[in-house]
Amino acid sequence: MTRSNEYLQDAADRVMITDLLARYVWAADYGTAEQWADVFTPDGVFGADKGGLRVVGRERLIEFINDLYHTVPHLHHVTTSIAIDLDGDRAAGKSQLNEFMSRPEAIYPNLHGWYEDDYLFVDGCWLIKRRLVHIPHPENTQAGKVGEYFEAFWKACEKYRD
Amino acid sequence: MTRSNEYLQDAADRVMITDLLARYVWAADYGTAEQWADVFTPDGVFGADKGGLRVVGRERLIEFINDLYHTVPHLHHVTTSIAIDLDGDRAAGKSQLNEFMSRPEAIYPNLHGWYEDDYLFVDGCWLIKRRLVHIPHPENTQAGKVGEYFEAFWKACEKYRD
Amino acid sequence: MTRSNEYLQDAADRVMITDLLARYVWAADYGTAEQWADVFTPDGVFGADKGGLRVVGRERLIEFINDLYHTVPHLHHVTTSIAIDLDGDRAAGKSQLNEFMSRPEAIYPNLHGWYEDDYLFVDGCWLIKRRLVHIPHPENTQAGKVGEYFEAFWKACEKYRD
Repeated sequence: MTRSNEYLQDAADRVMITDLLARYVWAADYGTAEQWADVFTPDGVFGADKGGLRVVGRERLIEFINDLYHTVPHLHHVTTSIAIDLDGDRAAGKSQLNEFMSRPEAIYPNLHGWYEDDYLFVDGCWLIKRRLVHIPHPENTQAGKVGEYFEAFWKACEKYRD
Repeated sequence: MTRSNEYLQDAADRVMITDLLARYVWAADYGTAEQWADVFTPDGVFGADKGGLRVVGRERLIEFINDLYHTVPHLHHVTTSIAIDLDGDRAAGKSQLNEFMSRPEAIYPNLHGWYEDDYLFVDGCWLIKRRLVHIPHPENTQAGKVGEYFEAFWKACEKYRD
Repeated sequence: MTRSNEYLQDAADRVMITDLLARYVWAADYGTAEQWADVFTPDGVFGADKGGLRVVGRERLIEFINDLYHTVPHLHHVTTSIAIDLDGDRAAGKSQLNEFMSRPEAIYPNLHGWYEDDYLFVDGCWLIKRRLVHIPHPENTQAGKVGEYFEAFWKACEKYRD
């Protein structure tokens, strides 16, 4: 054996957190609100720097993702370059978010941002304790056709302000 | 050791299936028809819900991918959020497909869909037994410039109808 | 145990190289020139087939990435379908590059290419020894708005010609 056991375990934790993030995307794009809430701890937090968005706890998470489903359907949350720092049963991660929106006339690259996450290993499974979305250039989610399609979503977000 | 051996093996299987899916993409975008057929079992199936596409077995798979190469070259099959359910030497997976097409005047996001797969572990290697492509919004593969570029491909697909 | 130790180690090496490539992207898109140079060996090479670009060694790598930061900011280097061939403490990999550029009016898919890499395992960590970018269709980085935004970058690249 040339690689240490610690190396194998670190790699395995990275895979399992990557799997968790894939299930988050599936729940957001093709799943149910309950499936989306399931990838968070019961007191999980979802926030965004744009507009002071802050959604805390399972009930509010379900309410929020339902608002997303109803205002901007047909998204792909393409999540790439997942970099994870491990610390036993805790971990922190960041990943890039490249969001695409399918509309009858075209597919739009509609948002460009990144996630900053905290994870917990609970009963043999990783869960998201806190996910913050950073949107460094929110102006391109408000311009042109993308801006029109997103208008109802940004309005719905006002309910979740800090 | 804090993680179980089962956890390490599950993680390793996920990595090896992810590697298989990367090799599928390479064969589709930059490789040969034989390399593409090699990622399937000899009786492998590739199908799509759009147009009842159904391609069965190595010989037909080679014929089909050659039709793709000739009608819509310069694609990137960007495959993300791979979620795998393991069951010993069998597995099922789904992943998002974000297809991009490089043309002299621009790069187009041309297709937005997802794969539903069955895999088998044979002689130390994972292979695709069945891959179905779901295209929930086929209308945007038929609109505008993307529609023009794709016309010959959809026509070629008629040969592979159920 | 149904999977061999070699299988677990191969999977772990793939994960750790994938993690390295994520850190490369973070340094290129949101980090510092030093963080970007850190993912290479001290004598690391970054090259491109377009324009005979060749950047060798830490000092030149830092100079080059600073030129990228200043000429084409707000990129996402979306790197997907990572296929790695392992050989002990050496490895070779290829991955697809899908570059997106965030501008106030829109997000552009601005470049479509692939990386060909050599890696080394040094003191418990993987590093990039050589990365070559292949850009099979450079014409679409020179057309339309993308061409305008990229003009200063291609000019800066002339300093790094072979």
